[in-house]
Amino acid sequence: MQSFEINKSDLLKIKNALDANDTELQRVLGEYHASEIAILFERLSPEEREKIINVLPSDIASEVISEMDEENHPGQILFNLHPEKRSEIIEELDYDDATDIISQLEEHEQQQVLDHIDQEDATNIRALLTYDEDTAGGLMNTDVIKLNANLSKKDALEEVIRQSEEMEEFYTIYAVNDRDILQGIVSLKDIFKAKPDVMIHDLLKTDYVFVKAEIDQEEVARLMSQYNLTSIPVVNDHLKLLGRITIDDIIDVMEEENTEDILKISGVSEDEELSGSWQDAVKSRLPWLIINLGTAFLAASVIRHFAGLEAKLPIIAAYMTIIAGMGGNAATQALAVTVRRISLSDLSDAQAYNTVLKEFLVGMINGAVNGIIVLIVALWYDANPMLGLVLFLAMTGNLIVAGLTGASIPLLLKRLGIDPAVASSIIITTFTDCIGFLLPLWLASALLL
Amino acid sequence: MQSFEINKSDLLKIKNALDANDTELQRVLGEYHASEIAILFERLSPEEREKIINVLPSDIASEVISEMDEENHPGQILFNLHPEKRSEIIEELDYDDATDIISQLEEHEQQQVLDHIDQEDATNIRALLTYDEDTAGGLMNTDVIKLNANLSKKDALEEVIRQSEEMEEFYTIYAVNDRDILQGIVSLKDIFKAKPDVMIHDLLKTDYVFVKAEIDQEEVARLMSQYNLTSIPVVNDHLKLLGRITIDDIIDVMEEENTEDILKISGVSEDEELSGSWQDAVKSRLPWLIINLGTAFLAASVIRHFAGLEAKLPIIAAYMTIIAGMGGNAATQALAVTVRRISLSDLSDAQAYNTVLKEFLVGMINGAVNGIIVLIVALWYDANPMLGLVLFLAMTGNLIVAGLTGASIPLLLKRLGIDPAVASSIIITTFTDCIGFLLPLWLASALLL
Repeated sequence: MQSFEINKSDLLKIKNALDANDTELQRVLGEYHASEIAILFERLSPEEREKIINVLPSDIASEVISEMDEENHPGQILFNLHPEKRSEIIEELDYDDATDIISQLEEHEQQQVLDHIDQEDATNIRALLTYDEDTAGGLMNTDVIKLNANLSKKDALEEVIRQSEEMEEFYTIYAVNDRDILQGIVSLKDIFKAKPDVMIHDLLKTDYVFVKAEIDQEEVARLMSQYNLTSIPVVNDHLKLLGRITIDDIIDVMEEENTEDILKISGVSEDEELSGSWQDAVKSRLPWLIINLGTAFLAASVIRHFAGLEAKLPIIAAYMTIIAGMGGNAATQALAVTVRRISLSDLSDAQAYNTVLKEFLVGMINGAVNGIIVLIVALWYDANPMLGLVLFLAMTGNLIVAGLTGASIPLLLKRLGIDPAVASSIIITTFTDCIGFLLPLWLASALLL
Repeated sequence: MQSFEINKSDLLKIKNALDANDTELQRVLGEYHASEIAILFERLSPEEREKIINVLPSDIASEVISEMDEENHPGQILFNLHPEKRSEIIEELDYDDATDIISQLEEHEQQQVLDHIDQEDATNIRALLTYDEDTAGGLMNTDVIKLNANLSKKDALEEVIRQSEEMEEFYTIYAVNDRDILQGIVSLKDIFKAKPDVMIHDLLKTDYVFVKAEIDQEEVARLMSQYNLTSIPVVNDHLKLLGRITIDDIIDVMEEENTEDILKISGVSEDEELSGSWQDAVKSRLPWLIINLGTAFLAASVIRHFAGLEAKLPIIAAYMTIIAGMGGNAATQALAVTVRRISLSDLSDAQAYNTVLKEFLVGMINGAVNGIIVLIVALWYDANPMLGLVLFLAMTGNLIVAGLTGASIPLLLKRLGIDPAVASSIIITTFTDCIGFLLPLWLASALLL
């Protein structure tokens, strides 16, 4: 099986069915998985999406809405539905998904939606709406299988069947005491295999990992990945069980965080939607470019300072841009490796020191090799051995600076509690530009004139 | 709870226990989770690691070994163990993990290890060793809960208990026919809740997703993420069930792929180990830098061509570097957004066209804003309105080129079947360097002289 890609024939089939009657549309939609319909939605108009949601059975419709990209405004579709259809769909949604979608609406729209659904659902969703969406509380689902630790095997199994009636899938059963304080976790398999007279508290696994509701989602992702967990319980300060986070929600978080890393390191605001409008893109990128323009003037002022030299040795301008550019590229390499390493695990002081030392060495060697090539070119084209020496030294020096700054600046930022990825290549290349201009100009002034 | 970070006191405690006797070492190790010991291993010598594996109970030792970073050579530790301890540990490992670790050894070492373990385990591991490690076959675990579709509820439950005896956790039960051909999936919950006279084939879910063994792991990750799966069955060409891949293995794949993306876009070979040696880093990065040196000479030849102009207008060199540098940064921004977007989903022709159009617009607007700033600076510092106009036009033009190349080159590569991330900023900035030098020099020649 291959992952689903939209092709013209699928789209045409849906478009034709949209123009035909509802029965035909239902028949065609039946050929697709809910997540495939969600992907097809990217190419349909808001009106077409609404029409499709209206003819789909509520359970499929709810799956489609929960799989929809936030940019396609699933909240708005939900809001525009007939209140009865809307309630049916929300009832089918997991609480965490329902909360995510409803949170996209304006406050008065949220009220209107919540007023029309089942009282208990509304209470649960209202509670989840209070958590910041980037925290464990914002990610969690309040639907859990929760047993009192004092239940017998038989009562426990009955309770599991009762509670799982409305749940699609569950991974772990949580045991609590009378005040809902988490006592441990137990698997259905273990209850099932236990002897008849066993109580739940005899089966508990107590060395489990849990998180508090206000923990950042990135930390939750790191924990679940580190301990290979498929779900993790969420508790309040008194260890009362509030809900659980499942691995499928964490995969979305990981993709989000990885997107942010790659954008920040390239000087793009982390909030830029990948498929957002050009207005958003300008807003997200222009500030970085203007900061960089300021630093570029700084680097250019180095060149102004040596304006006399250039008049005498115009060829230096061409070489200087090569050395500055190579420094920028080497710095980007060192930066990418270091930022990625930091985001996968924390580095000790000794590891940080070794990283900087390694990048110093790499910069020196790569600088020397490229320096020799430039030296040979200078001999060949310009027949000037002294110019060759100047360029060799400048290239080596600038690539050492590139390695040192590319590694040490993100490490330093991390220690200062600042996101290391903001040490974007835009910032780092300021150093390599300045040094890349300064070294050849200064060395040439000293050695060639 | 916070994710585990190594601190000095933990390390000191372990080191002291290593110097004391085995009982003390066992007591201290008992305070840590297996995955925490695997993290602590990063700071211990190979001898210390072996000593710890030797005193740990086999089930914990196998967990530690399966969590160890590949760079710390878990295979070598396993190989150095006493054959009896080694067999115990391998028996505790999942087949997929055992295969990964054993595959790190030389062929004759692999034989030696496999000759000393249980016959059935050895056969399973030998079969897994034949798959490429980057494919579904290389990722899968052959330990699955597999039921004949013709079993009754009662027999099925007994069979599940029997088969799950040795399994840590399972998510899905696979139903097969007499020739092991996959018929569908069923959940324990559904078997459990079924009426007594129900047969497995009545409970089957048949619209499940599966993969063939030779599919690339990246494709598996995309499927599991797209369809929100916690596990996926792996089959051969005849749909015979070979094994299953679980979501925890996919998380590692996703992190690997994301690391590769961020490295490639920054001009680092995808194979560079983040914490590898300086020799590896030189090998991985030097080729890219040398390619870039070639393209830098190309850009510099533009400057050489206008050497006469520079002698008359030395100030142009400083401005030219600013315009080229800004182009490089804007191109990096457009590139990062486009590459990340492609790696998360495939773009249709219409979406690709819109992306290029958007980046054109963004480049034009960001170029014009930065162009106006440079124009003002040129008026202020150099009192030269015509120079200001030249710079404004050159900046706008170069940022348009930056947007166009940053978006269109990765899209083009993708359509040619080449990994779009190799359109690294190193390649893209060649364009912006050339145009960034050419535009101001050519416009200045035409308008100022």
